[in-house]
Amino acid sequence: MKLASLKNGSRDGVLVVVSRDLERAVPVPHVARTMQEAIERWTEVEPKLQEIYRDLCAGRMPAVVAFDAAQAESPLPRSFQWLDGSAYLSHVELVRQARGVEMAKELYKEPLMYQGDSEYFVGPRDPILAADEGWGIDLEGEVAVIVDDVPMQVTQEDAGKHIKLFMLVNDISLRHVIPAELNKGFGFLNGKGQTAFSPVAVTPDEFGSAWNGRKLDLSLTVHVNGRQLGQPKAGVDMYFDFPTLIAHATKTRPLGAGTVIGSGTISNHDRSNGFACLSEARALETVAKGAPSTSFMKFGDSVRIEMFDDDGRSIFGAIDQRIERYVPARAA
Amino acid sequence: MKLASLKNGSRDGVLVVVSRDLERAVPVPHVARTMQEAIERWTEVEPKLQEIYRDLCAGRMPAVVAFDAAQAESPLPRSFQWLDGSAYLSHVELVRQARGVEMAKELYKEPLMYQGDSEYFVGPRDPILAADEGWGIDLEGEVAVIVDDVPMQVTQEDAGKHIKLFMLVNDISLRHVIPAELNKGFGFLNGKGQTAFSPVAVTPDEFGSAWNGRKLDLSLTVHVNGRQLGQPKAGVDMYFDFPTLIAHATKTRPLGAGTVIGSGTISNHDRSNGFACLSEARALETVAKGAPSTSFMKFGDSVRIEMFDDDGRSIFGAIDQRIERYVPARAA
Repeated sequence: MKLASLKNGSRDGVLVVVSRDLERAVPVPHVARTMQEAIERWTEVEPKLQEIYRDLCAGRMPAVVAFDAAQAESPLPRSFQWLDGSAYLSHVELVRQARGVEMAKELYKEPLMYQGDSEYFVGPRDPILAADEGWGIDLEGEVAVIVDDVPMQVTQEDAGKHIKLFMLVNDISLRHVIPAELNKGFGFLNGKGQTAFSPVAVTPDEFGSAWNGRKLDLSLTVHVNGRQLGQPKAGVDMYFDFPTLIAHATKTRPLGAGTVIGSGTISNHDRSNGFACLSEARALETVAKGAPSTSFMKFGDSVRIEMFDDDGRSIFGAIDQRIERYVPARAA
Repeated sequence: MKLASLKNGSRDGVLVVVSRDLERAVPVPHVARTMQEAIERWTEVEPKLQEIYRDLCAGRMPAVVAFDAAQAESPLPRSFQWLDGSAYLSHVELVRQARGVEMAKELYKEPLMYQGDSEYFVGPRDPILAADEGWGIDLEGEVAVIVDDVPMQVTQEDAGKHIKLFMLVNDISLRHVIPAELNKGFGFLNGKGQTAFSPVAVTPDEFGSAWNGRKLDLSLTVHVNGRQLGQPKAGVDMYFDFPTLIAHATKTRPLGAGTVIGSGTISNHDRSNGFACLSEARALETVAKGAPSTSFMKFGDSVRIEMFDDDGRSIFGAIDQRIERYVPARAA
């Protein structure tokens, strides 16, 4: 099943069921008005939504509308919690190398995870607003899951059962803001920009054997300004899998329905798969040539992130965003 | 004006206006059902709520109920964003000293701030659940503000205008979990437990001259197991004031209505004022005697945090919580 939230002028958008081919959508206000409402009552609403999805895909559903990703919010337009892991240690190694920071031994024992801004997620086709190109604007392509209510100290065995939906992520990172911020010791705040998710969220049953309950064995395709940056495999080199990430997050607290858990930037030790962020390309260029030749993103640059099934069909629709200059209203 | 959210079995509670003496309350579903709804439409709803408050305090309001802090959620039972500053550098200096970590020079230039768990705030009289006394359970007494929508890169001059409500905070910190977590470099996740706020949230006009638009010039009274731990002055030694904290948070993103911004643990260089966390007491004991004599909290211990006006009346009601052992359901 595929779900989306369409823009309607409210902070939470309106929930729609989207056809498998991403062509058609149907509002479902009689089942749940918003994605947050749906995930809070998932046990009750999922069978109803799945029935609508079957009818929609079979062409048996009246009153459908064309699905336009440009009219979509992120599937959860906002969330009460966004926890982003960094499960691909290949990414962590390269980025820390670029920052001149060593890998602490703790990084191999338990997941690195930060709590990000979830109060307003950017739509999948909305601009990425930045006030300064000098921030070092980078993309980060990831997979994320939405969970229902998860108790504190859930076991890894039980954690996977709480995964209800998958999305793609563009976790904008401001590489030149981050070092001074992390030096203060409390993690990211200014250094992570606004985060966008794919046009639709997808239930686990859509993936067949590509989802084994722990990792999603598909490649993420990333383009910058129309040129492919990489196609790393999400199922390879994921040092901490999704149940492990969820269990880690619940060590000292429960997670509420609608919590979003990210994988971190997908990254393979096989560098021929390319990259899901610019920083890794720059780190390798620096090792090889003494300096990076790839630039961070500038105003007008674009990034496209998507994932295809074995038949080449887009599963989530594409995140496709352009960097735009933010001008505070007072200076406009 | 004083507002609270009463428990009603839902995730957001029900908004009530509370009398100045904290004795009576009146539900206001015709104005706004929840605190989140009120802050999102603050310009429209505030005059209506203020009128109800005036009538309630004057005894002209029918259908009032007794206000029972034990039936209160935190004023925002959950929020889309909780950003906790660490504006009292006296606290940062002592806690880092206890951890054996130096003060980075960046700490004097811009605020230290972390993004905390906002998906479920604990009620002011609800237990603090911890699975292990060995976590090093500490309280942190703070003041926090709730803002309406704040644009990205707000000026310090404009930032203060977005402060709509004040609360007290108990930001539970797990001192023996934190060091290994911070060593990973991404800030707190497991190391901060669940956060509780005072029974009521209070508008700035209630404080008279004690609120000068930048700092709240009142003392925070903290008791542990019935013994006073401290009464530090919130208006003294606040190195970064509230408008500065808000402006810092908006450097690369806007803040949505309902965002909560904390001051960090209130701490004075004049140690005779005592402390709003156990870690500071322990740090000074270690300097004086080579080892701490104050213990972190254990199951059954209690903490009480409140603030009084010049006439000795409680402004926010008291946060009054007990530490309880959390047992996962599977082991129960």
